[in-house]
Amino acid sequence: MRVLGVDPGLIRTGYAIIDQRRHGLQYILYGEIGPDRGNPFSHSLMTIYDRLSDVIRETSPDCMAVESVFYGKNVKSLIKQAHVRGIVLLAGARSGTPIFEYSPLEIKRAVVGYGRAEKRQVQQMVKAILKLTDLPPSDAADAMAAAICHANALKTSSV
Amino acid sequence: MRVLGVDPGLIRTGYAIIDQRRHGLQYILYGEIGPDRGNPFSHSLMTIYDRLSDVIRETSPDCMAVESVFYGKNVKSLIKQAHVRGIVLLAGARSGTPIFEYSPLEIKRAVVGYGRAEKRQVQQMVKAILKLTDLPPSDAADAMAAAICHANALKTSSV
Repeated sequence: MRVLGVDPGLIRTGYAIIDQRRHGLQYILYGEIGPDRGNPFSHSLMTIYDRLSDVIRETSPDCMAVESVFYGKNVKSLIKQAHVRGIVLLAGARSGTPIFEYSPLEIKRAVVGYGRAEKRQVQQMVKAILKLTDLPPSDAADAMAAAICHANALKTSSV
Repeated sequence: MRVLGVDPGLIRTGYAIIDQRRHGLQYILYGEIGPDRGNPFSHSLMTIYDRLSDVIRETSPDCMAVESVFYGKNVKSLIKQAHVRGIVLLAGARSGTPIFEYSPLEIKRAVVGYGRAEKRQVQQMVKAILKLTDLPPSDAADAMAAAICHANALKTSSV
């Protein structure tokens, strides 16, 4: 089973493809989509939508695990992040990929063992679980963590 | 000049096309997009995106006026609304339509004269301004009000 993990972000949206195989999890690719500097916000949304749609088309994931909005942030960041998340869900729905949602707490618990883990710990655990040679960048690591969380949990109800 | 007004909503997204002509504002069409009952949220986002993209393709607006998120709501509604708003901005950006943003306060002030107007007052003023025969439904009225607000204000910086 192939899982696309996505961490929708205001500054960068992380994405990752991992395969669940008989002998464990296999990393396929990861990346981060940054904003178009100096361009309107709506253009950044288009960039995220296009890149993610390309990734889906090129890798044909069986399902998608998307991090939910973290309510601890200030409301303005929350709103911007939710705009991005809308785009991410649209890209998934458009391609017919079932979408599953996990809270940041569930994701951290799945990879580090407890929900209040630091970003650095998530990066280190993802590196270990997927046997990566380098520490992945933070938002891509969060996306991989979401994918790992789904591979382990296999929720059945989609968003 | 042809303006597409949009009121992105959790329950219904209102849209409206009005033309600004030499002798005043002319109503062209309005509508409301409801959710797909029983379908996942991501499918509703797709329905909104598709319908809005159709409207843009069929009517070729010169610009788009979109109501911004109203911070007075509870955070969960705010987050859902922002997902929808992300989709609306994507549809605009995808078609190359310049997008302008107005707060609910600015929109109400533009059509009713003060920012704390009731929904019913907005409907009645929109009906009067555009010389409609019937009272428009509430979310379509808000979309028309956004378009009227933009036609009157003509902001220059886009979202």
